[in-house]
Amino acid sequence: MAKDTNGKQALDELSALLKDRLSTAEAVRRQHAEDPTWNPVLPPDAVAFAESEEDVAAIVRVCARHGMPVIPFGAGTSLEGHISAPRGGVCIDTSRMNRIIAVNPEDLDCVVQPGVTRRQLNSYLRDTGLFFPIDPGADATIGGMAATRASGTNAVHYGTMADNVLSLRAVLPSGEVIRTASRARKSSAGYDLTHLFVGSEGTLGVTTELTLKLHGIPESIVAGVCCFKDVKGACDTVIETIQSALPIARIELLDAATIATVNAYSALRLDEKPTLFIEFHGSPAYTREQISAFSTIAQANGGDASNWAEREEERHRLWRARHDAFWAAKAAFPGMEAMTTDVCVPISRLAECVTRTQQDLAEHGLAGPIVGHVGDGNFHVILFAHPDDERKKAEIAAFSERLVERALSMDGTCTGEHGIGMGKMKYMNMEHGPALAAMRAIKAAIDPHGIMNPGKLIPQAD
Amino acid sequence: MAKDTNGKQALDELSALLKDRLSTAEAVRRQHAEDPTWNPVLPPDAVAFAESEEDVAAIVRVCARHGMPVIPFGAGTSLEGHISAPRGGVCIDTSRMNRIIAVNPEDLDCVVQPGVTRRQLNSYLRDTGLFFPIDPGADATIGGMAATRASGTNAVHYGTMADNVLSLRAVLPSGEVIRTASRARKSSAGYDLTHLFVGSEGTLGVTTELTLKLHGIPESIVAGVCCFKDVKGACDTVIETIQSALPIARIELLDAATIATVNAYSALRLDEKPTLFIEFHGSPAYTREQISAFSTIAQANGGDASNWAEREEERHRLWRARHDAFWAAKAAFPGMEAMTTDVCVPISRLAECVTRTQQDLAEHGLAGPIVGHVGDGNFHVILFAHPDDERKKAEIAAFSERLVERALSMDGTCTGEHGIGMGKMKYMNMEHGPALAAMRAIKAAIDPHGIMNPGKLIPQAD
Repeated sequence: MAKDTNGKQALDELSALLKDRLSTAEAVRRQHAEDPTWNPVLPPDAVAFAESEEDVAAIVRVCARHGMPVIPFGAGTSLEGHISAPRGGVCIDTSRMNRIIAVNPEDLDCVVQPGVTRRQLNSYLRDTGLFFPIDPGADATIGGMAATRASGTNAVHYGTMADNVLSLRAVLPSGEVIRTASRARKSSAGYDLTHLFVGSEGTLGVTTELTLKLHGIPESIVAGVCCFKDVKGACDTVIETIQSALPIARIELLDAATIATVNAYSALRLDEKPTLFIEFHGSPAYTREQISAFSTIAQANGGDASNWAEREEERHRLWRARHDAFWAAKAAFPGMEAMTTDVCVPISRLAECVTRTQQDLAEHGLAGPIVGHVGDGNFHVILFAHPDDERKKAEIAAFSERLVERALSMDGTCTGEHGIGMGKMKYMNMEHGPALAAMRAIKAAIDPHGIMNPGKLIPQAD
Repeated sequence: MAKDTNGKQALDELSALLKDRLSTAEAVRRQHAEDPTWNPVLPPDAVAFAESEEDVAAIVRVCARHGMPVIPFGAGTSLEGHISAPRGGVCIDTSRMNRIIAVNPEDLDCVVQPGVTRRQLNSYLRDTGLFFPIDPGADATIGGMAATRASGTNAVHYGTMADNVLSLRAVLPSGEVIRTASRARKSSAGYDLTHLFVGSEGTLGVTTELTLKLHGIPESIVAGVCCFKDVKGACDTVIETIQSALPIARIELLDAATIATVNAYSALRLDEKPTLFIEFHGSPAYTREQISAFSTIAQANGGDASNWAEREEERHRLWRARHDAFWAAKAAFPGMEAMTTDVCVPISRLAECVTRTQQDLAEHGLAGPIVGHVGDGNFHVILFAHPDDERKKAEIAAFSERLVERALSMDGTCTGEHGIGMGKMKYMNMEHGPALAAMRAIKAAIDPHGIMNPGKLIPQAD
């Protein structure tokens, strides 16, 4: 779809509607198109600061009338160019829609606006004994996390956004508002629109409210660090832990290169070896039992599982270091731009996939710290290039392509949690084959004029 | 859509294709349209016994060419007229597609054909230490369970079919075959077609293969029975158990009327009071801990939680009695036809919903045993009428409508696990409002000629 010619009129109408809540300032537009990696910065024509569902619906109706693209925006922490505006259009910034509307402790759920961030939500919940477990590295908004089907370190036990959004409200491209489901824990009443919208990256509508599952904060939480001689020992430990039905809450792999950057950035003193960060949740007796079972598995695979932390500040220090791994890697490569990619494979193929990826990096002289939510078979590689080193960037692009091909050849996926955005559209056909046509048909059915976040997720048909 | 006029030609082509695997015998056709309740029996024009995905694709292509309806069939245990053929057409019986294609213990998953039944799968898995937890009362096929988004007694801990199908293959109405996802545990690559097909009741395509999550059989399993003075005490126990983050594996309510029928049918001697059937999974020490925590909660709500069974045969006897509750109720009303319905509400509203439903039954002189997967807020009412007592059937229909309205007024759903079929289509608009139009658009996008299980799930637009 070519960029519309009625852009000016649409912006005039929006300006009349929103007054100073519509900005066309260069700095504001750029800021809404920049993400933490080196995706091209393609700013929208304007940024609209929505404060309510009615705002969003009104903005979308104006855009629909003029064929103007709409790009939903949360905190701008997505990684695959989800927020850029390759065809111009209006960015709807939902960060002011940050009210926690209801917490229902009896039902273990809550209702939030899309601009609420995960840390804001968990601070708010602190006194209820409940928490929301999904934790991508950044302090993303709940709306953005739903859009990209985010997960994080807790997914192995608590699932991803797909498992923790009970229902959502969305403004469709027509401007109409739908609610995808009731607040019941389960339903067999019709197509699962909730799961369809989660992970749809703003290409089907703009999310305006989400009902989330909450979880009880466990009585006992124990975190630990366990280092291994090699990646295989660490991965085999993960596989055996999962297989033994041990309900491990977190199990994260940091390779030796990552440990080096994390030590420097977070003032830790860990051995520079492949390392698992682990956490167990339960009653005090049960976490002790789990630690003992895990330690036996780890030791049999050459791991040293003697380093456990129960105190909150120690645990937080550890997980903060894990969440800062991306920034630690960036700090280790000053003056460089970062590109982070992720794939996910069946866990039985994880050791092979990580090991072959490390060999690939070594063969091509690339530095690429690896961190992973390995309980899910999901791992990230962070790569670096000088801003104007186009040759290096091309090498990294070729590496990323080989990584995706490797994951797909193992019956995995080209992204476990970052999403497709613009960056991975080229793999959609490779991964989905004829199913891509079904996705394309759904997109056309819900968004016939292609105004919702165009140029993302669904590649145009050949 | 009117029934096509090319039916004869379609059947001739199918007969040439399938030889004696196409039946037009009256008895076979009727048998494929009869379900365990009193839905009208509307037989298809023919029954095709598919033995492979290629068979299914070939049958669908013939039907598509002639505008002939296609009705997928598993074990025929669905409850809302899902398998009847209001517009004629060809029933594709998938029961011969019952191969277990692969079990991947390292990945805790397996790949099965749609005609595999849940008991067949669990027998097959017995020696692996793994099991598939979804257990609707009947020995349904996995394909049928996916189609209706089935759940059962384990859903409170292990989730429903929505949570346990990793990926599936389906023949679309065009005859094309898609695979909805890889075998990775999670993915952010595109629209979630897996969840779209799960619960779509055969209206988008015919499922030909499913990849399922498996779970480790816990080291210790302890089941128990706990009776209460009133339904409120039982429901409050459920709420507090869920809230306390106790990972209860099963928690089922049987009301006093149900206990009476179950005692008679399954030779038990339980007190005829509202009763919870409970089960805990874990290590031996952890199940003991859970029992102790649960007993404290139950006692505070007037429950007697002193009756626990650890031995396999005792536990199986208990759960078999629970699974036979529908047949027990049928046996208690000899010569009557049964109608079973289900709703699901946020758990905080459960006690009120069950109590008001019991009052409604009493006020209208209806016998209706109540059983429920109360950990999910889901319960069933089983109602009875003489086959030709149209007045009673009308009273029951009016009761069912009030039940649905009650559930929806509590932000619940008109069905937690039975599905919509033909029986509950009239509630789709009431429950979904504008979201129904989005479902209709998706249906039209995937099945533009409306051949897949027409007259089910999605009511025609006004």
